[in-house]
This record gives sequence, structure tokens and C-alpha cells, in this order.
Amino acid sequence: MRPNGIITLTTDFGLADSYVGTIKGVILGIEPDARIVDITHDISPQNTHQAAYVVQTFPSYFPPGTIHMVIIDPTVGSARRAIALGTPDAIFVAPDNGVLTYVWRAALERWGPEACRVVELAERRFWLPRVSSTFHGRDIFAPAVAHLARGAALDALGPRLPRLLEADLEQPADGRTGGMVGRIIHVDHFGNCITNITPQHLEQYGMSEQIVVQIIDQRIAGLSQTFSDVQVGALATLIGNTDHLELAVRNGSAAQTLGVGIGDIVRVYRAREAD
Amino acid sequence: MRPNGIITLTTDFGLADSYVGTIKGVILGIEPDARIVDITHDISPQNTHQAAYVVQTFPSYFPPGTIHMVIIDPTVGSARRAIALGTPDAIFVAPDNGVLTYVWRAALERWGPEACRVVELAERRFWLPRVSSTFHGRDIFAPAVAHLARGAALDALGPRLPRLLEADLEQPADGRTGGMVGRIIHVDHFGNCITNITPQHLEQYGMSEQIVVQIIDQRIAGLSQTFSDVQVGALATLIGNTDHLELAVRNGSAAQTLGVGIGDIVRVYRAREAD
Amino acid sequence: MRPNGIITLTTDFGLADSYVGTIKGVILGIEPDARIVDITHDISPQNTHQAAYVVQTFPSYFPPGTIHMVIIDPTVGSARRAIALGTPDAIFVAPDNGVLTYVWRAALERWGPEACRVVELAERRFWLPRVSSTFHGRDIFAPAVAHLARGAALDALGPRLPRLLEADLEQPADGRTGGMVGRIIHVDHFGNCITNITPQHLEQYGMSEQIVVQIIDQRIAGLSQTFSDVQVGALATLIGNTDHLELAVRNGSAAQTLGVGIGDIVRVYRAREAD
Repeated sequence: MRPNGIITLTTDFGLADSYVGTIKGVILGIEPDARIVDITHDISPQNTHQAAYVVQTFPSYFPPGTIHMVIIDPTVGSARRAIALGTPDAIFVAPDNGVLTYVWRAALERWGPEACRVVELAERRFWLPRVSSTFHGRDIFAPAVAHLARGAALDALGPRLPRLLEADLEQPADGRTGGMVGRIIHVDHFGNCITNITPQHLEQYGMSEQIVVQIIDQRIAGLSQTFSDVQVGALATLIGNTDHLELAVRNGSAAQTLGVGIGDIVRVYRAREAD
Repeated sequence: MRPNGIITLTTDFGLADSYVGTIKGVILGIEPDARIVDITHDISPQNTHQAAYVVQTFPSYFPPGTIHMVIIDPTVGSARRAIALGTPDAIFVAPDNGVLTYVWRAALERWGPEACRVVELAERRFWLPRVSSTFHGRDIFAPAVAHLARGAALDALGPRLPRLLEADLEQPADGRTGGMVGRIIHVDHFGNCITNITPQHLEQYGMSEQIVVQIIDQRIAGLSQTFSDVQVGALATLIGNTDHLELAVRNGSAAQTLGVGIGDIVRVYRAREAD
Repeated sequence: MRPNGIITLTTDFGLADSYVGTIKGVILGIEPDARIVDITHDISPQNTHQAAYVVQTFPSYFPPGTIHMVIIDPTVGSARRAIALGTPDAIFVAPDNGVLTYVWRAALERWGPEACRVVELAERRFWLPRVSSTFHGRDIFAPAVAHLARGAALDALGPRLPRLLEADLEQPADGRTGGMVGRIIHVDHFGNCITNITPQHLEQYGMSEQIVVQIIDQRIAGLSQTFSDVQVGALATLIGNTDHLELAVRNGSAAQTLGVGIGDIVRVYRAREAD
């Protein structure tokens, strides 16, 4: 992969401290031509599962050669590894704690295992000279990312690993009362509730647009194409812009209307089975 | 207009999701040299009136050739048009839902109708290949903006429209008890309450600095020049940095002190009429 | 100092208005090649003490030649001066209200008084043509910063001042019951409570890692190396990544767990004195 100079940042650092700015300083000190793009710094603190979801939503919209830095690192300072995952069109740099689970699976499926390389960021010459025990984002990950953006070979950063750590991310399953059971894995800024159910899952279960989605005691019949298909204030289910089933309220917040959040259960039935 | 490579973003997407980052990826994929500047992503969700106010506050501080992208889009997926407004020194790209009302009126006044062109973003070759029904910011607006920044002609993006949709933005009016009645249209981070009253309105009503501003049961006499003119904690009225009458509390929050917000009524009297 | 084109921004403007974006427009209008890095815009409104702490945490991670703009300006429009502090490897531009206290002291210690120059931003040709009384960040500081980034000499911006205004920032002191008394000066996004106590202070008091830290009625024995040294949910004290003593809860918020915040008192004892 030939780096294009773009580096994206996804963290749980928030924006009220100097942490994110400090990381950018380290990167620009090594690679002055880097173009750094903030994805979000508002992942729930130390929520690696939410991070894993968010990290799969944007890379396909960046040009080939982009480097994605993901720092959600609840076990910083422990024995957890720092890793880089290289694919033919992107590099991901992160702690080895499951945050790359979805992109790793997608990369294996798309490019095959031969084309996906994982290395441990073990080479100290690509770290800052002084490494703290609490801020590897600044001391290990940022310099590694900057050196990669300058063209350092992935294999120069450390030894090859056979695989990365996959988080135990729950998949939709058979419901006891028929249909399929999934969960809400992300609530966005508008209150849309994104589930772990994709069109592929619907297909596996032989489901079409003629479904009924149940959450708590509410039932919503039929997939909408877009928010505008329903009345203002009404509940809708649709396949959202990241190809997941989501619950939405037109011009409102589904999370607030329903009183639900991350982790809550969603049931999907074929329309004829719903009664 | 010759683009200068600067693209500003104003949205209601918030910063907790990957929406804004994804848009930047699309832009950089088409125009790698774009310099993207975030204005704000914290417009109240789907509040096109607040957006219309905010969008008029900053463009005059950007160099000629800047492209401004404004995505507050409550009717995404419906028949509302996607448009671009070209003036001799800037281009605005937005859904045609009123968010450009103020900049459109200002442009007509400054440049004349001949110099202000509106086109509909109808040419599919400037869209992403796959267009979702829920995220036109990513699929239609971002690529259009990037192509414009690369130098695509405005007229290449679609057919000319005679005008854009103007929102029904309330103007200050005669008060029943004399004077003028306006409203708060924005509350800023410091709690300053910005009204829809400008120095031009004061002039129309023959008002000078000898005014009394009433909000709920509070009366504030005389315009201050700056926050420091009054005691810490005291209420003041002044013409703020965007040339609107605003209510402020020195080193405090006027919105909190008064218990007021967007939409609340403000009355202005000549000093001699105030009793 | 030869500018490297990087400009950092630290303000209390928040991200919901167009203030930060407007400043960037002004900078890019004067110096199109500036690379602007947001540090934070979430300093507590008008909290110059917190700003002084934050401003010392990141500059050493930026390459030489960086210009740091700091706008926390509660007395804008009054007689307070606008200043620039030049050192051999950085320039700081700010209102003269104490926000540069820590970096000024560190610069004097590192470079000596001869190498640290303070000038007043008095030359009107480096301001915007029209200067408001409420937004000097836009009208005076931003253009000054941009001209400096383009290579304007520091002394061209205005007359030399002998020193800048130092805030009365409290230092740790002797405790009445022995040991040392400090305060919390910043609470970060994770709820870590950063104190005004540094390893140098511990050394002055002849303290090693064998200390007991008391806050309200909680006592924590021994400095940890990193968050992972303690159980999930347990309190720890450690020297954080900015070289200050901090209180932390592994995978939790110390501020919330303890119910403490900025200004609260922290006592440190030698382990053998703690009873």
C-alpha cells in the first residue's frame, strides 16, 4: 500500500483536553505533510465494541492509501499489544483489544488472508524516546502512524503476528418465539438506533421488506426507504446508510421516544409470523 | 469564481458519529488538496432557521473562492432539491430548504440578481455511484463540493433555477405598545442571546444608542460598547460581533440568568418612550 | 524562530457557534498555507487558570516553529493588552491575563530571560481593518498569528514589554498536619483529577513512591505506574502523562467516584507519617 498522506483519528479522548492536539503535534513533527482527519473522539470511554462498529463505517469512503488510527485503550500499560493491520488499500493502527474486529473480518473476506498482514509495533525506534505508561496514543501509536505515512514499510515496525484479537461481538440469533433477535449497537447524534442486523442477516432468515420489528412492546411493520416515508414523529425501520437495520423517528429521536439504548434487544419477524 | 481550495462545513451531524469524517473522506478522494474547515456540526438537529442565521456570520471572513457546504436536511430523501448558489466570491452548496435565505438576500443586495446563480445538483456524474436515501451529505453534496473545488463549472452540475426557497424568517415588527418587537434567534456558547434586530432595524425605527430593551420583566437601558462596560454579572445589550443586537451578562450567561432561549420575544423602545 | 506553518488554537469558544471557523477563515485569508490544529475549544468559559494549565501540556510535542494561539479573554474590550511571547522554538499569542503563566516560567527556566521576548500587539496594520469590541480573537489575534506564520518579525507587531502578567497560580504548600497540600486544577474527559503537584514538588518534600494521598476522607497508598496496576473500579494515584500527580479510577471516573472537582484539596503524606 502506498500511503496517500491522509490519517484518520478515532478515539475516546473527548475534545476538552489537549490529548488529541498533542497526538497531532507528534504526527506533524514526523510527517509535516500529513492531512489529519478527525472521525470522532466521542466513543464512549473504553467501549471497544462501539468503537469496532464505528470503525467499519467510514474507511470505504476514503481514498486508497489512508491510514486509520484507532485509540480506545482501556488496558493501556498492561501486556496488550500495539498492532498495525495492513490491507491492500489501507492500514489500521490500534491496540490489540478487538476494536478492529469488524474491519479485520471484512478485509479477510474481501482480500483473503494472504493479503492481510498484522504486525506488532515492537520496534522502539518508531516510538517517542520517552514512553509513558498511560498515553501510548501519543508515545507509540502516533509516531508509528506518522512513520507509516512517510512510507516506512509495515514489516519494519515489528514482527508479524498470525492474527489479531477478535472481540466477542454478538451476532443476531434465532428468537425463541420465531424470527431473529438482535441488539442495538450504536445510537447516533439524531437518536437513530443502529442494530447489529444487516441485509445479509435478513436474507439468511429469508426475510424481505415484509417484516415486523419489535422493540419492547412497540411493533413497526415494513421497512421504509427513507425517513420521509413516514409522518413527522412516527417510528420507522430502515436499512441505514451503513447497511444496518436501524430504528428512527422522523425529525425526532428514536432512542428518546422508545427509551432505549445500546445493548437493548430488537426482534424481527416475517410479517405473516408476527401475530 | 475561481476556487481557492477551502471548503467549510456547517451541519447538524454532531461529532459523536463518523458522518462528518466520512464526508471529508469523500471530498479528499476527489480533491486531495482541499483544505476543509469545520464551522460547526452542532446546529440543533434539523433547525433550518438557526442554520440560516449561523451561515451568514462567517463567509465574509473567508478569502474569495471559498466553497461553503451546509447540510441541515430534515427532508432528505423527499423531493426537496439539492442546490448550489454561486456568487462572484463564494459558492454555497445545500439542500433547498431555506438554510441559505440570509446569504441569498445579502448576495442579491450586494451583487445584484444577474451575478447570483442557483443550479440544481441534478447531474448524476457528480454524485457517488451509489446514492442512499438517508445520507445525501455524503452521496450528493460532498462529491459536488469536491468537484467544484477542483474547478468544475457551476453550470455543469445541473440546470439553472430562477431562485432558491426562502424560509419564512421573522423580521422585527412594530410593537403594540410602541417600539419594535424582535426575537432571540441564537444562543451562543457563552449564553449570549442574539436577536434578529440589526443596526439597520434600529435606524429604520429612528433609534440610537438611547434605547431600552425589555425581555420578560427585565429592562436594560442603553447600548454598551463591550462586555467590560458593565459590572461582572450585570446584564448588558450591545451590537455583537455579527452585527445583531444581543443580550449579554458580563462573565456569565444571559440565557441562564434570564431563563430565556431561541424564539423568546425582545422589545426595544426609545429611551423617552420606555415608561 | 522560523515558523513551520503550524498554528494551534486553544479557546473557550465551544464548537456550537461559528467563532472558531471564523478565526480560521481570517488566518487562511492571510496565510493560505497555514496548517491549523485545534487543541481544545472547551476550556471552561473564562477560566484563565485552567487554560494556563492546559497550555503547558502540549507545546513540547509540536515541532519547533509552531505558533500557539490562546484565546480565553474575559476582559476583552477593556485595557488588557494583547501580547505575543517569542521563545527560540515557539511563539504564543494571547491576551495578557495570565493564561501564559506556566509556559512563561518554563521558558525563562529553559532559555533564560534574554531569549524570551514579549511584545504588545499594538501595530494596527496587523489587525483587521475593522476591530469590534467583543471579538479580538478574530480581529486582532488571528491576523497577528497569520502574519507571524507568514514570517513577520515578532518585533514588527508592537513594542517590547519587560514581562507578561503572571496569574496568581497556587503552589502546593506545607500542610498543618504535616505533608503537603495541593489542589485539583483540571478534570479530564475520563474523570482523572490532575493536581498542581509535580514530581519536583514530591522531591522537594523528600517524598518517593511511598506516599499516601488523601482526598476528603479517602486515602490511597502508594503511587501506581499505570491504570492497569489496580483493579477495575479501584482508586489509584499516579504521575500522569503531563507529569502531574493525578487521581484516577481504572475504567471509571475519579471525579465522579469521589464527588470532587477543580479547586478541591489533596493532601500528600510520607507513608510513615500518614497515621
